[in-house]
Amino acid sequence: MFQAAELGRTLKKDAFEKLEPELRSQMLKAQLALRDSGLSVLVIIEGMDGSGRGSLVNRLYSWFDPRGLETHTFWDPSDEERERPYLWRFWRAMPPTGEIGIFLGGWYRDLVTDAVHERIDHVNLDRRIQEYVELERMLALDNVIVLKFWLHLPADVQRDRLSNEDSTPDDRWDKKGRHKAPKFRKRFIEVGERIIRQSDTALSPWFLVEATDARYRDVTVAQTIVRALNEHQAKMGGFAESAGVMGDSRQAPALPYEQSAMRTVLDQIDLDAKLSKSDYKKQLSDYQEKLKVLAWDAWRERRATVVVFEGWDAAGKGGAIRRLTAGMDARLYRIAQYGAPTDVEQRYPYLWRFWRDLPRDGRILIFDRSWYGRVLVERVEGFAADYDWQRAYREINAFEHEMTRHGIRLAKFWLHISPEEQLARFKEREETPYKQHKITDEDWRNREKWDQYRDAVNEMVFRTGTEYSPWTLISANDKRNARIEVLAHMEKLLRED
Amino acid sequence: MFQAAELGRTLKKDAFEKLEPELRSQMLKAQLALRDSGLSVLVIIEGMDGSGRGSLVNRLYSWFDPRGLETHTFWDPSDEERERPYLWRFWRAMPPTGEIGIFLGGWYRDLVTDAVHERIDHVNLDRRIQEYVELERMLALDNVIVLKFWLHLPADVQRDRLSNEDSTPDDRWDKKGRHKAPKFRKRFIEVGERIIRQSDTALSPWFLVEATDARYRDVTVAQTIVRALNEHQAKMGGFAESAGVMGDSRQAPALPYEQSAMRTVLDQIDLDAKLSKSDYKKQLSDYQEKLKVLAWDAWRERRATVVVFEGWDAAGKGGAIRRLTAGMDARLYRIAQYGAPTDVEQRYPYLWRFWRDLPRDGRILIFDRSWYGRVLVERVEGFAADYDWQRAYREINAFEHEMTRHGIRLAKFWLHISPEEQLARFKEREETPYKQHKITDEDWRNREKWDQYRDAVNEMVFRTGTEYSPWTLISANDKRNARIEVLAHMEKLLRED
Repeated sequence: MFQAAELGRTLKKDAFEKLEPELRSQMLKAQLALRDSGLSVLVIIEGMDGSGRGSLVNRLYSWFDPRGLETHTFWDPSDEERERPYLWRFWRAMPPTGEIGIFLGGWYRDLVTDAVHERIDHVNLDRRIQEYVELERMLALDNVIVLKFWLHLPADVQRDRLSNEDSTPDDRWDKKGRHKAPKFRKRFIEVGERIIRQSDTALSPWFLVEATDARYRDVTVAQTIVRALNEHQAKMGGFAESAGVMGDSRQAPALPYEQSAMRTVLDQIDLDAKLSKSDYKKQLSDYQEKLKVLAWDAWRERRATVVVFEGWDAAGKGGAIRRLTAGMDARLYRIAQYGAPTDVEQRYPYLWRFWRDLPRDGRILIFDRSWYGRVLVERVEGFAADYDWQRAYREINAFEHEMTRHGIRLAKFWLHISPEEQLARFKEREETPYKQHKITDEDWRNREKWDQYRDAVNEMVFRTGTEYSPWTLISANDKRNARIEVLAHMEKLLRED
Repeated sequence: MFQAAELGRTLKKDAFEKLEPELRSQMLKAQLALRDSGLSVLVIIEGMDGSGRGSLVNRLYSWFDPRGLETHTFWDPSDEERERPYLWRFWRAMPPTGEIGIFLGGWYRDLVTDAVHERIDHVNLDRRIQEYVELERMLALDNVIVLKFWLHLPADVQRDRLSNEDSTPDDRWDKKGRHKAPKFRKRFIEVGERIIRQSDTALSPWFLVEATDARYRDVTVAQTIVRALNEHQAKMGGFAESAGVMGDSRQAPALPYEQSAMRTVLDQIDLDAKLSKSDYKKQLSDYQEKLKVLAWDAWRERRATVVVFEGWDAAGKGGAIRRLTAGMDARLYRIAQYGAPTDVEQRYPYLWRFWRDLPRDGRILIFDRSWYGRVLVERVEGFAADYDWQRAYREINAFEHEMTRHGIRLAKFWLHISPEEQLARFKEREETPYKQHKITDEDWRNREKWDQYRDAVNEMVFRTGTEYSPWTLISANDKRNARIEVLAHMEKLLRED
């Protein structure tokens, strides 16, 4: 999940200075419009030590009009607060309509601290998170725009930051500096994943922000707030739940960014990975031999397997699937393909056709495209309403959780290629008679929306890359490499308990 | 909670026969309109042994057109079903658009059984319920109208039924008849309360139906289904979450009922209860003396108390509050009154002003009207949108849970009088110079909506009468009796741990 915030996203000083005046004017305009909108904004800022939550808030103050902006830190509760139900201190700090309230940590602060220090068990952690989901849901329906930001740092950056850290009055961690230990970081990330996964909803989503570079961090948060305000005001006349939070433009930056700030998880993939023909042949037959045995083992153990293939057009899904199944007994696996829903399928809830096709114990089902269509093609092409694809992340997580709880092993592949490689393959398809059926006008149209798809993939990996069902990103510019990466992952998966 | 289904609601044979033709024609019309609506209907029927779930379904079949109607019982899972995630069997039985699916028990069946037989602990019960809430939410947003009926019987009726029962292939309970023991009933009711409270949402509400009389039971379920269908179809063009399920007409019967079928929890109150002046005086000073001491005890123990007064206009709330506070030290309690929200209050979420006023540890706060305004006056007068008051039940339960978890003792009183008594009091107010300020045109207008308020109170008691915060219904035709009942309950409450 956090890989989506370890991309080295930065904004150079001159680019930042070019952006800043326009951003500030947008912020002030949005803030002015907010005043009579009947809406209020609640910004919750949580994240790692060293990620600069305080500096971020100070920058927001310098950009917004500080009138109509109030920040609450929720350090030690006062006796007034201790003598009332826990949530009272947050209610008394709630922003009125027309204003923006910033909660540093908010109701997540104590939860994170207690969970990291193991003062609360998983059961009670989950229960509490669920209560906050319902609380935020009520606020959203009562005209509060809830925006949650989680600031994240790669390990090395955090280490440097913490060794130079100023002490702040935030005493949630121990004073002896034990929170600087790598073990602590690991625990913090585990807790963060659990909290984000369970409290990330369409009405009050988490925005994961890489905080390595202060300029990038601040601009991203400010732009997200502005965009949410504009979206909501465009929809005014009652904030219906079906409106969702950020509409279609949730990812696309409102201001032109420089390239380094646009990195996604896909940029982490080394597209130069190559495999020689001989290596490929050797590894291929090696893995296929092993998978043949492992597939029978799974059958004997009555463990089912679900494999999801997603990727760019012409990324080589079909070829990878053929190499995966080549070694397996045809009685053990089935391949399910999904296009636009049929007439019959349209008469059921969205997930119905995927539920229908789930394999029996011991069998393998390969999904050539899947339920992720909703947050990819349906999102980008506008086939699904904003609120419908925004709520789909959570629904998909629940669906996959139900699978893994039953004992199903689940693999999810995204096959990544560069736009240049795609172009070359499209042209080859057009020129090769027996491949011509594989290329359509639609493929060319999709290609024009490369950036939108790339952002949708990034958000998908963040919101559905769960600990029980992570994504595997495949370097597929070299077909041989892609196939072996897929086989290697499958071999590992089928050996797991 | 179940007191709302132990009212002796019946429908005589001749009244039933007069209703039936019109009801059937409404059902067929609604079913026909459903066909092309893009909606489907999922009816979940759960409830007590002996409540006639099977007979109900058979009657629905005789009334509806059986084409487009499918019933699923979910007895022992097949091996096909066992070899897939648990919910698979329900997904394969999902009704397509245009049709009605009836699930006997549905996903609640195993949950009830496991909980009653203590094969699942509270933590896992709650977690599973929460998953079903999210599942039903997704279905509702994917155009499935989810209607859940819980059939209930008073203890004596159930005993009679079970002693004559035919055996059915439903083997969820043991065959030795241990489920007929009173201990079993108690357990079943506890589990039912827990499940209903947690899975009762605006999008998939539970309807509690008294099953003592088969005619009443069947007509009520059929009417509820018809009403839901009509409401939804009136709102078509996309089932937005904000539409809620049943709109404003959720309680008012579509067909004229006879009086016995209209009983509410208020009819269980003995309005003839009276107290002589001398008894009253003695008890009054007795209780006031005790409460004086108990209020100081609570202060020393640092336990806060919240007292909610709701009731009919002129039911005597003010007088009861004065008698309650008379004995107490004025430093320990405060009375908060609520009218229409002020300008400032309107700038915050609905519950904000009540959160704001919560007492510190050791203090007593008396709410003269309260957050229940949303499901009473705001509902009946149309000040709140349907979806807003429908979701309020759940939000109120969460709010009160947060209070009691902090250790606050909570009392909720409904002061009940007859319409005749109210009329007499209104007249007296008009005629008594120093009482004239207490009677307004609004009071007379509210009075005209007596039946709607009565139904709203009934639903409020069902949906917010939780085990941690039950309602106390007060017989208030006699003011002396009302005051002593209030004081007696307060004395008991303040002695509780």
